[in-house]
Amino acid sequence: MKTISSIQNPTVKQVNQLREKSRARKNSGLFVVEGKRELSLALKGNYTITSVLVYEAVCPPETIKILFNNTVNPPEFISISKDVYQKLAYRETTEGVLAIAKSKEHTLNTIVFQKRNPLVLVAEAPEKPGNIGALLRTADAANVDAVIIANPKTDLYNPNIIRSGVGCVFTRTIATGNTNEIIAFLKKNGIRIYCAALTASVNYHTADFTGATAIVVGTEATGLSEAWLHHADQNIIIPMQGEIDSMNVSVSAAILIFEAKRQREFL
Amino acid sequence: MKTISSIQNPTVKQVNQLREKSRARKNSGLFVVEGKRELSLALKGNYTITSVLVYEAVCPPETIKILFNNTVNPPEFISISKDVYQKLAYRETTEGVLAIAKSKEHTLNTIVFQKRNPLVLVAEAPEKPGNIGALLRTADAANVDAVIIANPKTDLYNPNIIRSGVGCVFTRTIATGNTNEIIAFLKKNGIRIYCAALTASVNYHTADFTGATAIVVGTEATGLSEAWLHHADQNIIIPMQGEIDSMNVSVSAAILIFEAKRQREFL
Repeated sequence: MKTISSIQNPTVKQVNQLREKSRARKNSGLFVVEGKRELSLALKGNYTITSVLVYEAVCPPETIKILFNNTVNPPEFISISKDVYQKLAYRETTEGVLAIAKSKEHTLNTIVFQKRNPLVLVAEAPEKPGNIGALLRTADAANVDAVIIANPKTDLYNPNIIRSGVGCVFTRTIATGNTNEIIAFLKKNGIRIYCAALTASVNYHTADFTGATAIVVGTEATGLSEAWLHHADQNIIIPMQGEIDSMNVSVSAAILIFEAKRQREFL
Repeated sequence: MKTISSIQNPTVKQVNQLREKSRARKNSGLFVVEGKRELSLALKGNYTITSVLVYEAVCPPETIKILFNNTVNPPEFISISKDVYQKLAYRETTEGVLAIAKSKEHTLNTIVFQKRNPLVLVAEAPEKPGNIGALLRTADAANVDAVIIANPKTDLYNPNIIRSGVGCVFTRTIATGNTNEIIAFLKKNGIRIYCAALTASVNYHTADFTGATAIVVGTEATGLSEAWLHHADQNIIIPMQGEIDSMNVSVSAAILIFEAKRQREFL
């Protein structure tokens, strides 16, 4: 097994670039996966892994190699020194494993619905990677048919999205696009658009989410853009009965998505 | 108006201690409020403010003094220099105002229910102040009748709770206690205990939350302690249909609380 013990090594620099720079990920079509669970989910999501870096004192290589038993083109395994691992790992992580993986395309035309009445979660321009991660966790728990991020402020392989979404970014059907093309996509697929909004809204639990449904949420600060509100089949609102008139976007989305799930009897 | 321009000033040291040390808050019965909205909510929650520190270049004192127009014993106002403000303020905050406030008691016997069928949210040993803040925001939006933190790992005036809860800690009925005394309190008040748990559970949406109800959530890592499960009237579960078998505790709590609200028709 190849060994890297210098933090000046080009692979170390590459991993750092891929982690820190969206542009580096975009230009190379590669990104970094950190942690064993995340790596397992990336494999489950049919991602191609090109390199695996293990810090052997923490992570015996065998425990990772076993994940690739059925892989036709297994990745290169590299043993890294403590210095290199500390340079590359997020502080909280003590799992001892990182990998380089190939990105997938996330255009709208990659979405294939298996159901007549899909349930889709759309989030417009979420402010923080952590919010996208939380939305993906909820989408995973509810097994929604697709997650669509409108006008994203970061690429989906931002390490904070991977981490806060505990790997759900690899296993969900997820696409990005601009608001207008997403609206056209939903209309073309006969999916009703329910916008979380403060005006001209019905209480969310009185809306019927049993048909093909997109639940669309905006940012905490400014809500949804005009285009969404203009094209909504129905605006919906979560009644707020306290002093503060907003909830975290991932919390609101979860309440709406699970009301839809309830109406569909979790089928 | 008194002025402080040295970061060596004893008041500056006191504010820092109150912000950083739970013990300092406990010993003095004081804590720090930062930001105008948070200060307004503290006043709305009938907290006594002893001192207000303003950095006048950012926050004209008049905009704060007006909040105290109806206060019998208005606080001391202190003008602080840029150096002092930068020393005391959280980095993200640019509001220019901090205050010292008196703590309240949060024992169970301070809870007075106004309704025959109160809705109570109980969280056992939440791992992070940010999770408590998120729970408080949800509790505020749903106007639950009380929030109870079992076996808290921090006091309620931890600055991260105040901030992540955007001041809801001041306006909600909130108490802390150990698990056994909380269970006794709920039983004595005829409140049914619904524990979010993986075993012997019914799907949450099939439970009846219209009577006096406590929804009890544990930590993401270990769930609820045995005592809760032993005394539960009903264990409930949110069906998980994805790859990851857990949601953020504040997201789970929101789904459960809003299902209770829906069943109660948001009354």
